[in-house]
Formats: sequence, structure tokens, C-alpha cells
Amino acid sequence: MEAVVDYLCDERKKTQFDVEAMKIVWAGSRESLQVSDRMANLVANDPVFEKSSRPMLGRKELFKNSLRKVAYAWKLINDLNLSEEEVTFLRQYIDEPSYTDLQWNMFVPAIEGQGTEEQIDKWLPLAKKMQVIGCYAQTELGHGSNVQGLETTATFDPQTDEFVIHSPTLTSSKWWPGGMGKVATHGIVYARLIVNDQFHGVHGFIFQLRSLEDHSPLPGITVGDIGLKFGNGAYNTMDNGVLRFNHVRIPRNQMLMRVSQVTKEGKYIQSDVPRQLIYGTMVSVRQKIVADASITLSRAVCIATRYSAVRRQFGSRNGGLEIQVIDYKTQQNRLFPLLASAYAFRFAGEWLKWLYTDVKERLAANDFSTLPEVHACTSGLKSLTTATTAEGIDECRKLCGGHGYLVSSGLPELFAVYVPACTYEGENVVLMLQVAKFLVKTVSNLGYKQPFGTTAYMGRMAALMENDCSVATSEEWLNPVIIAKAFESRAARMIVGCCKELSAFENPEEGFAELAADLVEAALAHCQLIVVTKFIEKLQQDDIPGKGVRESLQVLCNVYALFLLHKHQGDFLATGYLTPKQALLANHQLRNLYSKVRPNAIGLVDSFNHTDYYLGSILGRYDGNVYPKLYEAAWKDPFNDSDVADGIHEYVQPILKQKLHFAKL
Amino acid sequence: MEAVVDYLCDERKKTQFDVEAMKIVWAGSRESLQVSDRMANLVANDPVFEKSSRPMLGRKELFKNSLRKVAYAWKLINDLNLSEEEVTFLRQYIDEPSYTDLQWNMFVPAIEGQGTEEQIDKWLPLAKKMQVIGCYAQTELGHGSNVQGLETTATFDPQTDEFVIHSPTLTSSKWWPGGMGKVATHGIVYARLIVNDQFHGVHGFIFQLRSLEDHSPLPGITVGDIGLKFGNGAYNTMDNGVLRFNHVRIPRNQMLMRVSQVTKEGKYIQSDVPRQLIYGTMVSVRQKIVADASITLSRAVCIATRYSAVRRQFGSRNGGLEIQVIDYKTQQNRLFPLLASAYAFRFAGEWLKWLYTDVKERLAANDFSTLPEVHACTSGLKSLTTATTAEGIDECRKLCGGHGYLVSSGLPELFAVYVPACTYEGENVVLMLQVAKFLVKTVSNLGYKQPFGTTAYMGRMAALMENDCSVATSEEWLNPVIIAKAFESRAARMIVGCCKELSAFENPEEGFAELAADLVEAALAHCQLIVVTKFIEKLQQDDIPGKGVRESLQVLCNVYALFLLHKHQGDFLATGYLTPKQALLANHQLRNLYSKVRPNAIGLVDSFNHTDYYLGSILGRYDGNVYPKLYEAAWKDPFNDSDVADGIHEYVQPILKQKLHFAKL
Repeated sequence: MEAVVDYLCDERKKTQFDVEAMKIVWAGSRESLQVSDRMANLVANDPVFEKSSRPMLGRKELFKNSLRKVAYAWKLINDLNLSEEEVTFLRQYIDEPSYTDLQWNMFVPAIEGQGTEEQIDKWLPLAKKMQVIGCYAQTELGHGSNVQGLETTATFDPQTDEFVIHSPTLTSSKWWPGGMGKVATHGIVYARLIVNDQFHGVHGFIFQLRSLEDHSPLPGITVGDIGLKFGNGAYNTMDNGVLRFNHVRIPRNQMLMRVSQVTKEGKYIQSDVPRQLIYGTMVSVRQKIVADASITLSRAVCIATRYSAVRRQFGSRNGGLEIQVIDYKTQQNRLFPLLASAYAFRFAGEWLKWLYTDVKERLAANDFSTLPEVHACTSGLKSLTTATTAEGIDECRKLCGGHGYLVSSGLPELFAVYVPACTYEGENVVLMLQVAKFLVKTVSNLGYKQPFGTTAYMGRMAALMENDCSVATSEEWLNPVIIAKAFESRAARMIVGCCKELSAFENPEEGFAELAADLVEAALAHCQLIVVTKFIEKLQQDDIPGKGVRESLQVLCNVYALFLLHKHQGDFLATGYLTPKQALLANHQLRNLYSKVRPNAIGLVDSFNHTDYYLGSILGRYDGNVYPKLYEAAWKDPFNDSDVADGIHEYVQPILKQKLHFAKL
Repeated sequence: MEAVVDYLCDERKKTQFDVEAMKIVWAGSRESLQVSDRMANLVANDPVFEKSSRPMLGRKELFKNSLRKVAYAWKLINDLNLSEEEVTFLRQYIDEPSYTDLQWNMFVPAIEGQGTEEQIDKWLPLAKKMQVIGCYAQTELGHGSNVQGLETTATFDPQTDEFVIHSPTLTSSKWWPGGMGKVATHGIVYARLIVNDQFHGVHGFIFQLRSLEDHSPLPGITVGDIGLKFGNGAYNTMDNGVLRFNHVRIPRNQMLMRVSQVTKEGKYIQSDVPRQLIYGTMVSVRQKIVADASITLSRAVCIATRYSAVRRQFGSRNGGLEIQVIDYKTQQNRLFPLLASAYAFRFAGEWLKWLYTDVKERLAANDFSTLPEVHACTSGLKSLTTATTAEGIDECRKLCGGHGYLVSSGLPELFAVYVPACTYEGENVVLMLQVAKFLVKTVSNLGYKQPFGTTAYMGRMAALMENDCSVATSEEWLNPVIIAKAFESRAARMIVGCCKELSAFENPEEGFAELAADLVEAALAHCQLIVVTKFIEKLQQDDIPGKGVRESLQVLCNVYALFLLHKHQGDFLATGYLTPKQALLANHQLRNLYSKVRPNAIGLVDSFNHTDYYLGSILGRYDGNVYPKLYEAAWKDPFNDSDVADGIHEYVQPILKQKLHFAKL
């Protein structure tokens, strides 16, 4: 048996706060930490969930193995009678995209949100017991972001009381839906509704695509997988599919009719249920994406931080140890802001979850007033956090130097599996433009409509435009009031700047298109303000127990804000809010803060409470025993089964022996 | 036979310049274009070089197939008696990392550069005929950037006139060298020289690691592959290796002795050949990396540009076609600066090649005076161009939306195979710090040493510090003199700013470490200035024939400069060189320039003259026939061989039929 040595033990001794208390802050509550921990270990200790061999498997084998895991997990869930919370954690820790993601995150919510009571009664029990497996067939080969541009048609045939679903063109092929390629038996298909030769926009329809008996595609349906995606394992465990309909008939009652109906007689009726309800679903999905971003970023940061403490390079004196790379300012300047971002996004996600609960209650009471603001800020935070996380994972890979490029570092696969989050559920740039549109509207309404929520600061527009920053020392940059005001002023001034430029255009739409890049920058400034504000508000809560916990988080909050301030100092200076001198003082303070993060860095990533199994990274091992394990892993690679690789005799020896002319190539 | 339709035909009609003439500018000369074109087609038309199936192959199969390609190519080279230039293009177009990269780029140059005449006479003919295959065993498990920290030892044994090569620790294992894992028979190993119990720094030694007869590792050598790397195919065609020495003996004359010698008697002698010669090799390797960066970026940009013209989304009026995504300013603002960067890096690379020839001549004449400046600017441009290219590829993937995530887009593999360039041959941040060190030194020497070459502008330091920008209209931002001055002033002021801050530290080394992040920013500003200047100088040459060619390049040059100016406007404003108003005028001009790039975008990427084979991307097809080919490719995927995938009956049907308890999981 191996002796257990903690190579990061010295680092852990440096920690100035109570790690166990910080774990609770990260988890949200003691109970949540306990459940999470239990589920993490359940997965980690079960060999069925082994995942390190994924990148070596061929596609078919990889997929089959993934199906096995899903079945096994489903059995576990039922056998252990796991709660909804436990199931959520279980799925997170299994850490593998699969068709059930679509079942629970798209198919079931779509029926719940867009189905009539009758439809819910019929389909939900089937779905919940997995007697049907559903996909979400929206995206087409030629159409993604623009849902109204979808080409698939659903034509009502009053003769038979059916809809005829059809793919009229190649580009109307459904393309990308997860679980559709090989597994799903049913799905929601989005199609242009045609009744009496009239188009009525895009609607959702429940359809069956495969036989429940033998899983073969039903008549009129051509379906398959769209092929390999980025990465070795990554999203290749998912059967993203292609599907064409050839006049497939479904009963009229399989149109999701909560919002609009088609009657037996072929009459199209809009119900009085407001269309905004759809935004409610979007808000729900996107807030989950924000929560997931913080977790994913925390994994990458945990790996890079631990390895940066293990890795030493340069600076040895008299043959002693070299310097830990985590001690270099260049490393800190790339790593610590990402560490701070992981915490910042965590708290932003926590707040969004509350916001979603709040808006759900309002919607139930027919109060739609907050929806546009909630929708804008959820969209913006989805865009901001996924973009930062995707870039952050790759930055963490680079921070691990050459070894980060090995699959065994875990980072290449984490990147490959994560990046779709920047595209699905609202492409990030498109989302920022939506935020910008909302902000411009908010400004133009300022005279007669009081802004609220995340736009409340715009109510103080005159002051934000007039009063420049008063900072005179670098210490002042630790003051949350000063930080918040700086971010408010920057965002407000950038949005107003855009509005001024927009007013020069006769056609507002044309102006919006022309200034799109600047509008995206302004929207980003607004979203960064939200994250900064929510971090500050979190720290103003009373209930943050544990020695040094609040203080350590305060440092991270300042790092997050001042790093952004430095990175975007062009905005702060161009709007005239800061002087160059004040920007420089902020940068000095930032450097100073890095020194305060340094001793706590390992403690701060330990607080994520990630198991080695979940991290899936030799570089990020809890015990820091990196080099022996890298070495060991190399020899376990099947490519090293023999000293002389296949192909050497056929294709290398003839070159060496100058006998290439006789070789069979 | 398929009808040939050019879906981008309308785009090509818009082009306002002579594409054939631009191809010559890109290639460097008409002759170079011809050779390049011939080699590109030779590879594209030979089924042995087929590469689209790479991502589907298991590692062993992938590797074997790669060995076959190398042998076949070597046969071609000899049979067709290809010139050195032709061979270079052939290798580029084969587009697959392999052990011969090390043979020609590292092993042979190391012997040429560091070997004595005797050693060159003995080893070079063997290497050139591939009777030995060499690797370059420098990096160790625990040591990368810090070459002086390597742990492998080479102890001289005067009794036998041999060196004993040994790996004293686990972390001293050689780790990463390409070609070492499975193929190389020989190598240059870098080890700490010990003579009479005295250390004499790190030196290179020629050693044999495998039998020339049966390819088995020689006694005392443990060697293997380090395992899977990022991506499906990517660098997995290369056998990056791990190697340990257990007291392996080599004859004394296998130490590379051009610079230092060990005599039979065990005397260590430094020759009078200056150590700087080693920088000459570095300059050579790094200028090739810059040239390669422009080509790689051009491939990604070509794919994203063509697809952006094919893809349409939103904005359809009255059921007509939607808007081409290339018409969106947000798309242009991300794509066109990368297009401009590809050209900018091309010309910077061209100039670096000249610089290398120049410095080689000087070195031959024992003139070492320009070496530090040349070394700094080559290092800086390596760092700048590889970082931009790596990020640029991923940006291009995102610009292709969801479809960019498919392996068939070519972009995931291009990214995975390219990113190591940011780490090897000088880690990018470490290189920028070296540039910064050189710049700080240049400033401190200003009183008595006239700066020259890329630092000549610092000779006008007083003017650069005092005179602020005078721009009053956005038109002035098209003036190359004004652009150059802005970049000079920004760089000069940032470096001087760092120097001032440094002077506050008692210990200069400590100051340098503390300010490292800011120094990197200043070095980047200097490097961007070089690229801008070289682009401007290129356009001042007389010989740019062809209708509209110079004009189109002028637009790109301005896009490159003004995009950087906007992106880094914080620098320009913080140094007080620009006012917010002037920065805004530059941004207006940038938007205006995008409209000028737009009609020429397809022509500008056609001018790279990339074959469809070389691009390896369905999205980047010359004919724009994207959707039918994506659809076709999906059905060719072996995963679609059967409608019902392996695993469905075992692991999905039992769930659907609620019989999971009977299933074998």
C-alpha cells in the first residue's frame, strides 16, 4: 500500500481562514455541502463511473459505455430513492453529457411550460418514469439563433385531425439536438405552423421518432448522428442528431397548446396566457448555466492553482529548490483573477437562483413587470460567465505549461466539453446585444419610468455622469462603495455614449446594427457591474461565520473588481471617470492584493471540496503528488504495451536501412 | 459526376482587387507561389495523404498511418528529387506532426550549430540520409523553461574516455521530446556536465537510444510514450516521449564540442567561439514559428470568412433570404482584425526572415552587435504571433457558431495541434519578460548608446514623451505617420513608466519580479509597434503590382492598427498620448474601414491560395457548398452504420420497458 504524503501540506498550513467554514459558504449551506459531499463520494467510489479511459475509446465504445452509466445511475436513483437535490448532484458528479440531460432539462420543462393540463397529465408521468425518452428538436442545419426562421413545417389536415410534419429543404433538417441521433423515442419538434395555407409562426409539437419495441426509426423519419465533435471524450458521449421528416403525421393533440391552439375545425386561437411565460423557462435554464459556469471554472482553477504550487522553475540559489511558479506575479496576475471569478460567479449564480424563484412567484400572480429586467440580466450573466469560463479553462491549461496539454491534466477535455455553453441557449454575442437593447430602452424611458433591480443605478444618472472619481490613495480602492460607484459610472456613461451615437441615425435599427460592437462593450460593462455588486452584497450579509472567511472573500472581491478595472481601464479613462493616476493606484492595489491571496490560494481551492475523481486531473491532485503519477500514467498507456510500436518495422526500418524502394507503402 | 456550382460566386464578383496579384504578394514571389501551388496539389491529389479520417482512428492506428505517410513522403522526395524549397512546402501541406520535424528542425541544426567539424562530418551525412533518426532530448518532467535547472548528468570518466549519462531523479526523466517515444534511434541529450566532481553547466551530447537493427531500446535506457494529448488527431501522431538513463556510457567525442570541450585528460575548456552563437539558432527557429503563425491563422480566417458569407441568420424581409452573418458589425469586428493580423504577421515574418539572413552574415563576420536586439524582437514576435494565432483559431471556431464545434469544421483540430506553439521554443510569457528586460536596458543605456533597429524610435524619447497626439478628424487616423507615432509613443511611455516604477526598488531584481505583469504589457506594446511598422513599410515598397492590391492592403494595415488601438485604448489614454475624443475618432474610422474590407473579404482569403484539402474544413470549402456536404459527411460516419446503435438493447430498452432490474449493468 502506498504511503499517503501530502506534498501541499506546507501550503495548507499557510491558510489564514477556516477551510471547513468556507466550504459551507461555497456550497450555500451546511446541508448542501453534506449532500454534495455524499454524492461526490458515491460516484467517485463506484468503478462503473470510471472516466479516465474515455479519451482512448472509439466513438461506438465510448457511446455504449455512456449508455451503461446512464442505466446504472437510473437504477441507483430508484434503488436508493434519491431526492431531487441528490439526483442533481449525482448527475453533476457523473460528469458526462448524455441523453438524460435533454430529458430533464428540455423535454420535461417544455411539456410542463408549454403543454395543456391534459398534455401534462398524459406525457409527464411517462417522461418521469422514462417510459418515453425525449429530445428537443429545435435547431436546424441552416437555422440556430433565429428561431422564427426555422423551415420545418407542421401543416394541419382537418380531414384527419392531424398535423403533417415535413422537412421541405435540406437546410430544414433538424441538426444538433442531443439524444436525438440514437436514443430518443420522442421529442418536441419546433415547426412553422400552417393552417388553411396560413403561417402562424413557430410552435412545438410532441412527436415519436422511434419504435418503443425495437428502437428503429418510424416511417417517414430519417435520423442519425451528426459526427465527431471537439475533444476526445467531451461531448462525443452525446448523440447529437440529424433528422428529416417526410410528411410525418401526428394527432392534433400533440401540438403544445398552452399558449396557442388549433381547433378541430382548423381555427388558430391565441390563448390569454401571455407569451412572456416562455421567458420564464429561458430564465430558468440560463440561471442553471451560470451556476454551472462557476463550478466548471472552479475545477480548472483548482487544477491550475495546485499545480502552480507544485511546479517550480528558475530562481534556485546555491542548488536549493527553485521558486514555486505560483510565486511569480505573472502567474498570479492570470490565476488569481480567475480564482476570484469562480467565487464571484458562484455568488452571482446564488442570487440568480433567488431571482428566478422571485420571478416565478410573480408570474404565478400574473405580475410580468420585472420579467424584461430579469430576462436581460440572466441573458447577460449567461453570456459573461460562460465566456469567461471557457477562456479561463484554456488560460488554466496554459498556466500548467506543457503538462497542461496532456489529456491527463484534465484541462483539454474540460475545455472541449464546456465551450458549447457559449453557443447553446443563446449565442453569447447575440445575448449581449439583447442586453444592450434593453439598456438603451431603459435609458430612453428614464424620464417617466423608474429603473429598478440591476438597472436601479440608472435612476441616479445625472450624478453618475457628472461626478468623477475622487480616489487619491491606493487604499481607497479597497472601499466597496468606491468600487461600486466606479463600475456604475463606467456602465452608465458607456450606455449613454451609445445612446448619443444612436441618436445620430435616422433609422434606429440601422444605428443599432452599425454600433453593435460598441453596444456589446456597454452591455458587458453593465453585466460586470452586476457581478461586482452581487459579490459586494454577499459580503454585507450577516451570516458569514468562520475565522478569516469574510476577510478572504473580501480580498477576492477586490481582486475581481480591480482586475476588471485594469483590464478595461480604457473604458474608465475614455468615459472620463478616472484619471490615469487613479487607474495606476488601482493597479498598485491589485498587486498588493495578490500578495494577500497567495498564502490562501490552496485553501481557497480546497474549499470547492472537489474530489480527485471529479477533477480528473493528475496535475490537480489533492496531495500534489504530480510527477510520480504522471510517470506512472504514461506506462499504463496501451501505446506502451510494446517497446517497438506497430509500423516501425514496415515504415521506419526500411528508411534507416536505405531499403525504402522495396517497402510496401 | 457532381455539377460544379460556386455558391460564393457573387461574393467573388464583389472583389475590388486582382486576386492573382495578391496571391503573389502573399506567397512572396511568383516563383514561390508556383512551387507552393504545385506541392499543395501534389499532396491534395494523393490518397496516401488523406487526413479526414484521423480523428476517428485509435492512437496506435493513427500513429502507424503517420509513419506510413512519412515513409511515403521520403520516397517521393527522393524519387522526384525535390528541392529544399519544394520539400518545405511538401511538409507544410502534409499537415501532420511527425518525428521528421525533429530530425530537420532540431537534430540536424543542433549538430550543425554546436558540433565540431569532425562531428559534423561524421553525423550530418547519416542524418541527412536518415540512416540515423534523431530527437532533441532537452525538456524534463520537472524542468522546462529553465534549461540551467536540468537534472540529467553527464559525468566524465577519464578511465574509459567516456561520459556516463544518468537520470538521478524521477523529475530528471526526459519528458516531451518529439520522436523519442517510439521512433528515434539517436538524440541530442542535454545534461549537466560533471568533470572531476565539478559542474560545468548544461551541454548537449549525441547518444544512441535504440538498436538500428531491431529498434529495441539499448541497455540502460527506459523509453516510452507520454500518452494522449489535446485533440483527436492533432499532436497524437507524434510520439512525445519519456526516457530515463541508467548510467549509459557514450564516447567522449559525442559531446557537442564547438563551444566547450572536455579533453582526454579531463580538462574543461571554453573555446573562443562566442556563446551567443546559440542565440543564432534560436532566432532561426523562432522566425520560422512566426512564418508558421501567419499561415495557421490564415487557414482559420479563411474558414470563418467563407462560412460567414454562406451562413445567413435573422433579418429576412417578406420571406426573402436572411442576412449573411458576415454583414453583422459584431462579426466583422471579430473577424476582420484577424484577417488583417494574418497579413500583418505574414509581412512581419517576411521581414524576420530577412533579419535572420542579415544576422547570420554578421555572425559569420564576428559581428555580434545586433544580436541582442534581433534576439529580443524575434522572441517578442514569436510570443505575440503565436498567442494571437491560438486565440484567433478559437475565435474563428466561435464565429462559425455551433457548426464550428464539429470536427469536420477543421477548427477544433487546428486549435489542438497549434496551441503547443505558445509553450515550446520559449514559453510566451517568459519570452515577453525577456523582451521587457532588453527594453529596460535599452532605456537605461539611452544616454550613451544609440538605439537601433526596432528600438531606434527610443532615440527620439524626449519628443515621444512630450508631444501628444494632434488628431482632430477620423480621416487623420488613416495616415501611417500618425499611426506609427501613436504606437511609438504608447510603447515608449509604457516602458519609461515601468523604468520609473522600477527605480523605486532598492533591489532591481525584486522590482522586476514585482512589476512583471506591467513589464509584459509594455513589451507587448513594443512588439505590436514592430508589426504595425513592418506592415506600413511593406506598403511603402515600390513593387506591389496588381489592380487594387496596395489599396486593399492599406485598408487591412489600418484595420490592424486601429483595432489594436481600440482594444488597448487604456494604454494610449493612461499614458496621456490620446484624449478620449481622439480614441473615439479612431474607433469611428475602424468601423468605416470594416465596410471597406467587406466586399473584398472573400478575395482576401482566396489570396492565401489554400486548397480544400489543406483547409480540411467543410465550412471553409472554396465553393461554399457547406450544407449538403455537412449532411453527406454525417451519413458517412461509421457511427451511422446501423440505425440502432450498440448498447441500445442492453442499456436503453430495459429502462423504457421498466425492466432495469433484470438488466446486466
